Amino acid sequence: TAPFLASEHQHIRYNPLQDEWVLVSAHRMKRPWQGQVEPSPLETVPRHDPRNPLCPGATRANGEVNPHYEGTFLFDNDFPALQPDAPSPGPSDHPLFQAKAARGVCKVLCFHPWSDVTLPLMSIPEIRTVIDVWASVTEDLGAQYPWVQIFENKGAMMGCSNPHPHCQVWASSFLPDIAQREEKSQQAYQSQHGEPLLMEYGRQELLRKERLVLTSEHWLVLVPFWAVWPFQTLLLPRRHVRRLPELTPAERDDLALIMKKLLTKYDNLFETSFPYSMGWHGAPTGSEAGANWDHWQLHAHYYPPLLRSATVRKFMVGYEMLAQAQRDLTPEQAAERLRALPEVHYRLRQK
Amino acid sequence: TAPFLASEHQHIRYNPLQDEWVLVSAHRMKRPWQGQVEPSPLETVPRHDPRNPLCPGATRANGEVNPHYEGTFLFDNDFPALQPDAPSPGPSDHPLFQAKAARGVCKVLCFHPWSDVTLPLMSIPEIRTVIDVWASVTEDLGAQYPWVQIFENKGAMMGCSNPHPHCQVWASSFLPDIAQREEKSQQAYQSQHGEPLLMEYGRQELLRKERLVLTSEHWLVLVPFWAVWPFQTLLLPRRHVRRLPELTPAERDDLALIMKKLLTKYDNLFETSFPYSMGWHGAPTGSEAGANWDHWQLHAHYYPPLLRSATVRKFMVGYEMLAQAQRDLTPEQAAERLRALPEVHYRLRQK
Ligand SMILES: O=P(O)(O)O[C@H]1O[C@H](CO)[C@@H](O)[C@H](O)[C@H]1O
Ligand SMILES: O=P(O)(O)O[C@H]1O[C@H](CO)[C@@H](O)[C@H](O)[C@H]1O
Repeated sequence: TAPFLASEHQHIRYNPLQDEWVLVSAHRMKRPWQGQVEPSPLETVPRHDPRNPLCPGATRANGEVNPHYEGTFLFDNDFPALQPDAPSPGPSDHPLFQAKAARGVCKVLCFHPWSDVTLPLMSIPEIRTVIDVWASVTEDLGAQYPWVQIFENKGAMMGCSNPHPHCQVWASSFLPDIAQREEKSQQAYQSQHGEPLLMEYGRQELLRKERLVLTSEHWLVLVPFWAVWPFQTLLLPRRHVRRLPELTPAERDDLALIMKKLLTKYDNLFETSFPYSMGWHGAPTGSEAGANWDHWQLHAHYYPPLLRSATVRKFMVGYEMLAQAQRDLTPEQAAERLRALPEVHYRLRQK
Repeated sequence: TAPFLASEHQHIRYNPLQDEWVLVSAHRMKRPWQGQVEPSPLETVPRHDPRNPLCPGATRANGEVNPHYEGTFLFDNDFPALQPDAPSPGPSDHPLFQAKAARGVCKVLCFHPWSDVTLPLMSIPEIRTVIDVWASVTEDLGAQYPWVQIFENKGAMMGCSNPHPHCQVWASSFLPDIAQREEKSQQAYQSQHGEPLLMEYGRQELLRKERLVLTSEHWLVLVPFWAVWPFQTLLLPRRHVRRLPELTPAERDDLALIMKKLLTKYDNLFETSFPYSMGWHGAPTGSEAGANWDHWQLHAHYYPPLLRSATVRKFMVGYEMLAQAQRDLTPEQAAERLRALPEVHYRLRQK
């Protein structure tokens, strides 16, 4: 048989952070695509639309009127999936029918007063302000709740119901599923190897170089060895940092810079406002915040669905839902493509 | 506080089969939807299109010409994600960089010579033929491979690149991720409780009745207590059956009937050809097929994405990808709606 080539020969890879396998079948990119083509995203969104509930001065569904905010704006989600006071379902009567109480709060954070910008089109100080709110909301909600999930759904393809630049914050009384998996893996790695899983992982990627996308004084961006989405990335601080509020001012400035670079590359890849879901993971908070969480390393995951062009996405369907995630290019190929892209946004170049 | 009401108060539920939690926030259905609306599916597909590679007599991408088949047609996928002879990546040099060999075959099974039918519009004997091929392909590929994944992606929304009624079969040299999770859970349940998890689960649902959708002499269809997708269902034989080939002729006939009823209800829900991914799970096969797999119970999962109408789907995005699955109506509400739907297909009623 021929010598193994990751880009030619399918194989499976292990995700040690979430304890999952992915099937890598890069030769599959050769097949023609006849499936669904997504509608092209609107490139022209009005800067201000008084009917858009996220705009400054707009009236929201519950009748509240937004302030004429000039920077960021954080408020309670009008249709929260988690509320602070839901009663408990009570004890379960059978091991196959287990339900538990869930309490929490859901907030929305507008990044900017204008609807026609996105993070990569914002200035470094504007992005820095968003980072500061991420840190402070983690601190505030983390005082009461064990998990504060910051996430951004960007683009209609990602179920985002509003083009205004914003993210969400859902804090919960329970450790969500994926947080539990990451807790278990990082805990086990630390007790076996005596250091945090993601600290060693970041160091290895810096040595191996093939999956790096961006590096800066304080941060790394890479396509993880076990990436599932075509252009998935992992954003990691170089220093051992457990949670967003621990970031120093220098680390925050540098984060604003590297986020702008990464998101500019994403937009440049297919010359479109790149859709994705992203989110931050850090050590649990709440009443147990003081416990030893040294096995945790703060990180952000970016999960973008596009595969071939601005309108052809990867579908995680049949085999992926029933058996195992599958990807159509290697993480190394994805990293190489992202690395090669310019750091100036295509919309600014054209002007 | 008010007494707990599943349809009003968010809570979390446990999936004992795949060891996962879901957040149930049914009060969320009250929010208005402003997000992406899917294109309406083409209701008129030509019965025969010589350029469609799945049609009888058509020429496929690799130059092969399909026979003028009159029933089902099983052939090798021209762009397989799994090939029988890929070399091995060799030993891993670090615990965070683990890769393994993956070998297998991918087949496509056309259900019918016509492109303008779907399973619920096919006759019972025609569906029965599909079931027989599912059983025989499991037997054939299962002789060599430990896992044979039969799955159907239906509808453009589910990444299905061809409207011709068909499913896929991917057999692999490894136990895929979700198969491993189900193996672990069913194994543990059996050793703790002395009977298969899904046998007890089916019995309990027959007693509790609130999540049943359809029952027949040999089969049950229910919305599982831990369902993630809005109208997700689980199809279970009443008898303890480990794999598709073990089904008796009477069980196969009855399966054809209950599948037709379920898929007709699905199409009737929003009066559209209901998109979904579905697939079969049974005991592992291959060289270990003779081991004790009595903890396994054969079952099919149906994962349909539609939530509110033929064009408004549930997005499993930000919170779901980063933290935990979340659903917007209770499994009991979904079961009630499905139960109430007629068993005559809306397209046949209109004629
Ligand atoms: O093989 P198909 O139908 O072209 O492809 C579809 O199903 C596959 C298996 O679930 C997925 O990997 C693809 O992303 C999807 O588009
Ligand atoms: O709250 P939104 O943005 O309207 O809703 C979106 O994000 C949520 C959190 O990931 C998902 O549960 C919804 O399915 C999705 O449409």
